[in-house]
Amino acid sequence: MATTSDVTLTNDKHIPRNIIMVVADGMGPAYTTAYRNYADDPSTPAIETGILDEILVGNASTYPAAVSGYVTDSAAAATALATGVKSYNGAIGVDANKQPVESVLQRAKKLGMRTGVAVTSQINHATPASYLAHNESRKNYDAIADSFYDDKVNGHFVANVMLGGGTQYFVREDRNLVTAFTENGYQYVEAYDELASVPAGSDVIGLFAPVGLPAALDDENHHRLSYMTEHAIKHLENPEGFFLLVEASQVDWAGHANDIGSAMAEMDDMSVTVSYLHDYVAAHPDTLVVLTADHSTGGLTIGANGVYEWHPEYLRNMQSSVSSIAVNMVSEDSPAGYAEAQLGFTFEGDDTARVTDIAALPDFEARETALKAFLDEKTNTGWTTGGHTGVDVEVFAFGAGAHAFAGQLDNTDIAKTFFQYLEAK
Amino acid sequence: MATTSDVTLTNDKHIPRNIIMVVADGMGPAYTTAYRNYADDPSTPAIETGILDEILVGNASTYPAAVSGYVTDSAAAATALATGVKSYNGAIGVDANKQPVESVLQRAKKLGMRTGVAVTSQINHATPASYLAHNESRKNYDAIADSFYDDKVNGHFVANVMLGGGTQYFVREDRNLVTAFTENGYQYVEAYDELASVPAGSDVIGLFAPVGLPAALDDENHHRLSYMTEHAIKHLENPEGFFLLVEASQVDWAGHANDIGSAMAEMDDMSVTVSYLHDYVAAHPDTLVVLTADHSTGGLTIGANGVYEWHPEYLRNMQSSVSSIAVNMVSEDSPAGYAEAQLGFTFEGDDTARVTDIAALPDFEARETALKAFLDEKTNTGWTTGGHTGVDVEVFAFGAGAHAFAGQLDNTDIAKTFFQYLEAK
Ligand SMILES: [Zn+2]
Ligand SMILES: [Zn+2]
Repeated sequence: MATTSDVTLTNDKHIPRNIIMVVADGMGPAYTTAYRNYADDPSTPAIETGILDEILVGNASTYPAAVSGYVTDSAAAATALATGVKSYNGAIGVDANKQPVESVLQRAKKLGMRTGVAVTSQINHATPASYLAHNESRKNYDAIADSFYDDKVNGHFVANVMLGGGTQYFVREDRNLVTAFTENGYQYVEAYDELASVPAGSDVIGLFAPVGLPAALDDENHHRLSYMTEHAIKHLENPEGFFLLVEASQVDWAGHANDIGSAMAEMDDMSVTVSYLHDYVAAHPDTLVVLTADHSTGGLTIGANGVYEWHPEYLRNMQSSVSSIAVNMVSEDSPAGYAEAQLGFTFEGDDTARVTDIAALPDFEARETALKAFLDEKTNTGWTTGGHTGVDVEVFAFGAGAHAFAGQLDNTDIAKTFFQYLEAK
Repeated sequence: MATTSDVTLTNDKHIPRNIIMVVADGMGPAYTTAYRNYADDPSTPAIETGILDEILVGNASTYPAAVSGYVTDSAAAATALATGVKSYNGAIGVDANKQPVESVLQRAKKLGMRTGVAVTSQINHATPASYLAHNESRKNYDAIADSFYDDKVNGHFVANVMLGGGTQYFVREDRNLVTAFTENGYQYVEAYDELASVPAGSDVIGLFAPVGLPAALDDENHHRLSYMTEHAIKHLENPEGFFLLVEASQVDWAGHANDIGSAMAEMDDMSVTVSYLHDYVAAHPDTLVVLTADHSTGGLTIGANGVYEWHPEYLRNMQSSVSSIAVNMVSEDSPAGYAEAQLGFTFEGDDTARVTDIAALPDFEARETALKAFLDEKTNTGWTTGGHTGVDVEVFAFGAGAHAFAGQLDNTDIAKTFFQYLEAK
């Protein structure tokens, strides 16, 4: 396995000034291939390659500390990515003995860099929490939110920019963390378009939903991650450099729900974000971008049931998520016609009868499950679990120092290299 | 996507003299991670890395020609790997218009190199056939076998060494191809240990089974692929160089059968083979080895059913395949005791009662299916299909010229680079 000691960093002329870590939560290898097929222009004979094909450099193993076996959760994986230390499933920035371990973001802050997170989950969810806090359990959401304010690094708040969801945890009856931050100079925004009027270089907390953001398919901005990322960078740029964590959090949520339509829409938001970052690095070659997943989710497979086919054409024009369709179809005069318009393909055969029957199911969850089964059959998509699987994930890198991430890595190698880069600055 | 034109080959001092292509049929990303876990020493806290972790360089897309959609079969994928041309599912060394296209092995032969195949399927199965022959359908086994003798390259037989299974196709009532080859100077061997007495540098046809070889778990030599590979090289080495195709054919067969025990045993035979080749290249640095899969099979997932666990400990001491156990258990005094010994783990809870019930099933296939379900539950393994899936596969490379295979490739890129290397010699 490639180790960071292979790289003579102190003699490397490409030590990055800025580091941007992108985590696509749950994005196992089947997701990236599926997305290439989804993004394929069917009017041409070739399958078009995309940004991910340009920047792939290798794979990373994802297993947690031995106590948790061979399949990781998002907390242990995020702790490994953030700190370089394997821990137990559920751990937020603590080792297997529940002792705090420093994250690369915390080290960057200690070194005088500006720091931030831009995520589509609540900002105190497992992945950003592992970069910003220490807690023995990912489930202690209020305590983790408190840490963002209470835990100082050299007397400073740990993050200059926090964009995502989470008012439920940051504006509570027992404590209003938003007010606390704004009293300390932070700008607070509650809508995406308010970001545009915040002066560059500000400290910002932007919370755009009570918990996670709406699904990409249902959000007013289908590409809200790239929008938040662009604005985060605007506020982080400075001569001392910055560390930014970007998370496409809801690839994982779509995987847990076995929802192929949302999986592809979340992948699209991630891909647009990475394309933006690729352009950014072209203009700012002192910046390093690394993209990986923490694990794969759902046991997604491209093809299923003995049939050698996959049909992304049933996903390319979706207007809203199956969850949203399952909610709204019951109040429509023609539920099947509504679903057909929202799903974005022309019904054939018994599709209309089938979806009419689905709309008649009294239970929301039954309608949602039936719509997902309908799309799985149309696309011939397979799933094996509502949880995670242990397959290695892909690693993508570009910009200053990207060469160190080639080949087979362990997930802890990424933070270990970041630490070396931060020390070598 | 990386293309071979990125590499200035004529100025490359590392043009390989010998090329060894290893195809692990059906080995999607979940197989390589699963095998790392299977090979893990549970008495140590870390998961040991293996030869594959040392040699990973990137991924390859596997989709066939557009007419066959997004999921390939082994014939179209082998044709892409062998010739650099995408074709339809079922195609053997012909393009989408059913016209023959030259393989890298045929080109090597044309250039005066020695050539060979060593596979665990019948030697006229899809993958070796695509390197050695041209046929509009993989199903034309007799015609493909005939081609190995009838189709000459510059007046020579296409392969100097052919090791695998297939007497059913090569010794037929209507034609005896083995006799035809031996009359033209080939040595014929029918048992692995006979290989040891064939003088180095011979032309050899070795057929060790009527169709495919026995499964690794059931074969007299669990590592028959590395044994055949070592002997193939002995007969191919010469100053003009050689091209050898090695195929771990039955990873795919285990995947089709959703048989996790055999999948790991076939992976082990492949891994031992690659370790042998790694040592060979250390001693012969003018040799290039590239390993990849043609596609993934079975929709294998490490973990399933919402549970974040995988338990390879139930696979590590298997003595024979579930198929063999399903056959033999019925004639044992204690079917469950026999199965326990063959499966290689201590039964607990209701395992003995369950396996006793399985042994009482009158139908062989029902027993085999029930034993596989038993192992899937024990290990928490998931499957979505008895066929193939479309996920990108990993690419591994080492030796002379290995640098050209880094990053994201398409499966056709591998043959394209081989052609450039062969022309540059
Ligand atoms: Zn998850
Ligand atoms: Zn197959």
